Amino acid sequence: MSTKTVAGNYFEDFTIGQEIVHATPRTVTEGDIALYTALYGSRFAATSAATFAESMGLERMPVDSLLAFHLVFGKTVPDISLNAVANLGYAGGVFGVPLYPGDTVTTTSTVIGLKENSNGRSGVVYVRSVGTNQKGEMVLDYIRWVMVNKGNLDAPAPEIVIPDLPGAVAAEDLKVPYDLAGRDYDTVLAGSPYLWDDYEVGERIDHVDGMTIEEAEHMLATRLYQNTAKVHFNQHAQAQAKIGRRLIYGGHIISLARALTFNGLANGQSIAAINAGAHANPTFAGDTVYAWSEVLERIELPGRTDIGALRLRTVATKDLPCADFPYRGEDGKYLPQVVLDLDYTVLIPRR
Amino acid sequence: MSTKTVAGNYFEDFTIGQEIVHATPRTVTEGDIALYTALYGSRFAATSAATFAESMGLERMPVDSLLAFHLVFGKTVPDISLNAVANLGYAGGVFGVPLYPGDTVTTTSTVIGLKENSNGRSGVVYVRSVGTNQKGEMVLDYIRWVMVNKGNLDAPAPEIVIPDLPGAVAAEDLKVPYDLAGRDYDTVLAGSPYLWDDYEVGERIDHVDGMTIEEAEHMLATRLYQNTAKVHFNQHAQAQAKIGRRLIYGGHIISLARALTFNGLANGQSIAAINAGAHANPTFAGDTVYAWSEVLERIELPGRTDIGALRLRTVATKDLPCADFPYRGEDGKYLPQVVLDLDYTVLIPRR
Amino acid sequence: MSTKTVAGNYFEDFTIGQEIVHATPRTVTEGDIALYTALYGSRFAATSAATFAESMGLERMPVDSLLAFHLVFGKTVPDISLNAVANLGYAGGVFGVPLYPGDTVTTTSTVIGLKENSNGRSGVVYVRSVGTNQKGEMVLDYIRWVMVNKGNLDAPAPEIVIPDLPGAVAAEDLKVPYDLAGRDYDTVLAGSPYLWDDYEVGERIDHVDGMTIEEAEHMLATRLYQNTAKVHFNQHAQAQAKIGRRLIYGGHIISLARALTFNGLANGQSIAAINAGAHANPTFAGDTVYAWSEVLERIELPGRTDIGALRLRTVATKDLPCADFPYRGEDGKYLPQVVLDLDYTVLIPRR
Repeated sequence: MSTKTVAGNYFEDFTIGQEIVHATPRTVTEGDIALYTALYGSRFAATSAATFAESMGLERMPVDSLLAFHLVFGKTVPDISLNAVANLGYAGGVFGVPLYPGDTVTTTSTVIGLKENSNGRSGVVYVRSVGTNQKGEMVLDYIRWVMVNKGNLDAPAPEIVIPDLPGAVAAEDLKVPYDLAGRDYDTVLAGSPYLWDDYEVGERIDHVDGMTIEEAEHMLATRLYQNTAKVHFNQHAQAQAKIGRRLIYGGHIISLARALTFNGLANGQSIAAINAGAHANPTFAGDTVYAWSEVLERIELPGRTDIGALRLRTVATKDLPCADFPYRGEDGKYLPQVVLDLDYTVLIPRR
Repeated sequence: MSTKTVAGNYFEDFTIGQEIVHATPRTVTEGDIALYTALYGSRFAATSAATFAESMGLERMPVDSLLAFHLVFGKTVPDISLNAVANLGYAGGVFGVPLYPGDTVTTTSTVIGLKENSNGRSGVVYVRSVGTNQKGEMVLDYIRWVMVNKGNLDAPAPEIVIPDLPGAVAAEDLKVPYDLAGRDYDTVLAGSPYLWDDYEVGERIDHVDGMTIEEAEHMLATRLYQNTAKVHFNQHAQAQAKIGRRLIYGGHIISLARALTFNGLANGQSIAAINAGAHANPTFAGDTVYAWSEVLERIELPGRTDIGALRLRTVATKDLPCADFPYRGEDGKYLPQVVLDLDYTVLIPRR
Repeated sequence: MSTKTVAGNYFEDFTIGQEIVHATPRTVTEGDIALYTALYGSRFAATSAATFAESMGLERMPVDSLLAFHLVFGKTVPDISLNAVANLGYAGGVFGVPLYPGDTVTTTSTVIGLKENSNGRSGVVYVRSVGTNQKGEMVLDYIRWVMVNKGNLDAPAPEIVIPDLPGAVAAEDLKVPYDLAGRDYDTVLAGSPYLWDDYEVGERIDHVDGMTIEEAEHMLATRLYQNTAKVHFNQHAQAQAKIGRRLIYGGHIISLARALTFNGLANGQSIAAINAGAHANPTFAGDTVYAWSEVLERIELPGRTDIGALRLRTVATKDLPCADFPYRGEDGKYLPQVVLDLDYTVLIPRR
């Protein structure tokens, strides 16, 4: 192999405290917003209309929280997960300043945990990745951990370091870009009369609609995010692998599920935190994604009476409507049709 | 079902005079323009080049008339036609001010007609929908009527009200955003030497080219318009329905047909009115769309010698070239390959 | 056929010295940039981040060189190659000023060569096409030649004129939009430590990754460029032709290959010249494209110590990884899996 091509890091290439500045900063534009809408059909008013965003105290229309997530995530792939076997989890994801068209995101990751697997062939790498805009302001700060192959099986196992992972982002750590004080929040234009006060812990909502995924769609999305994971794009190679098909980027499912939640959570205008998440089963082109949500917590934000937060679990399925809230089997394992289990926190106006 | 999800209105939910402000205002951007070009390949110069738009007296490059139409239409779907059996017709569609990147469209509909079907299971709802920009200026004002299911079969039939539907938008009601007085209109850059004066009533034009539709394309388009009709997106559910497949949004065919008309009507820079329209047969992914047009009227615009209007019938077919102008069979019914019969009015420079 | 539709020029319609101003000028926007990223996943920093572009002395973020190429090329299709049998070659392609969002490109072609084939049914047309921005500055100036059918077989053969074709664009003719003097070029953000000085003539690089193409993707791309060649879009007609399928626009493969070269040539921020090119074999949806490159020349630019140029051959294949640099068989012909042989020159910072 040419010395000039990048093969990605293997498990033994990571060291605790290592800081990686990821290549290819990315300027987000109105073009990204249009594509994001075309890919997911998201209808949240604050990211659909400049007028609505301004009515919530924003300077102009920001991009969807998850588009920011995907851009930050995508940058990390060539360095962190090009040789990954699996994306194991997320924790402590905090969204900072909104990302506006014209902003440029740069991402830096720090290795915060390492644990070689007992088989000696791979190990788990924990990284904290921070995306910042061109002013150095934090856009997204999150932890993920992935299982990464070893390149050299003879490399010694590193000292085991497992970081403390936050259970869920605390109320005082949530950033609120909106200011509704003295403003009229228009629930008609937002698409739902239900505000923070109207949700109850334990309440479950079937989001009803289903969306079928095509190969062209998930590849357009994943390339838009400059995510280079090979399994999403190369049918020639995948056909020779056990799974036989292109795998869909897990973030594509997160965005589809979030767009479906509009029907039931239309006032959850943005995501403030990603607390935890699992891609329970793989998805492929032709699958139809459905979703349901449960309210895990109703969070009061310190010093704020205009906006609250809801901690939600959103579960996405493939080819299975969610009227019965499918989740885990009697064995405690995810049902085979469950593809996503996301624990996250949205901001939502109060009465 | 959760009380928080929206199931759409059923026939018995509509009342005469009811006004519905639709959710999710939409800011249109240059991103939408790029996607529109990628989806249809439209080549009309006024919506392709800022320089050309300015040469016609516009302040800058507007979006395609039909993109404005789709955005306005899309907003109405969750409230008007989520439970629709069929989109029956259009009338009195007038395009107002051009929509420019950065403008935000909000749509309001008024119920102007109701007629329950004799079977008592559904009824026809007539609505007038008006899309306005952030300054309150009218972008599009049109009537459509749809057959909507009853949710409660025991609901009493409403009093029958059938609105007066205009036959075609009158010359004096057409809005002309261009001003060619004292300006050179460049027919070379526009792509055709044929102007208003060169067309004759009764003249028929085969637009020659055909365009095959993929699932990913019509879904990207329909989501871009935030049109939520389930039949376009959910293969899992459609497979269980009689038709077995995802139906393509009728507006997607309108845009494809309009883009094809460039070959023969390149100077018809924008649409001023939609007089009537029928989606004669459904289309599916894999169909190849062709189109032909007939000049129905050559309209002089009051006080204008720079611009005239042509009232056109554009017929689109699937998998059938249009050299023989396929339309209706001997029984007067649309041929099975005819998918669109659109009566509309374009603005076109005069000599 | 209606006199108003355009059937494209046939071989006998071209004359030496003929100048054709192509229709539909095109304003490029940030929407085009987003779509280009989504279609190819390009990661070159100068066309991904405004901050990076500015760090190289550009006023703002330009569009990818090849997007400019496709827009200029697309304009020429309705007039030059609508009745073409084959796109035979490129020469003397020079990129001028960068194309920025908001710029409008207009293209003009001049016929510089004609040679009827001995069978009397077709002939070769050589055109020089120049794309300019709204200020009249040259964006791209290139020669291509195509084999075009005769419409009237009785038309007499024109005098044979074969233009002198440049072998490769000379160093002194390359335009350099960057100015790194006194600036820090960030190789970490660019994605590779390898600069001009690090490449050797004869060095070959396997770009490793493969990308599978879907019908929706190449059609979205080709329509975005307003390229109207029928073979790319009409499955109904193609099914009746010998090849049976939609052919993918050759330029789509050029862009895919160029995006793949990031892995090994990440600092080759833009293309300065297209010296020659052949679409060695056709590609179809479902094909997976791989690529490798060879350094043909390391070019010093007159008066510049900040930037150099590399003349490259990039070869793209279908369904064949490039670790062994597949190219020609023992008979000297391209291997059947080779789909592109492109000789071009990129600009790359020096140490």
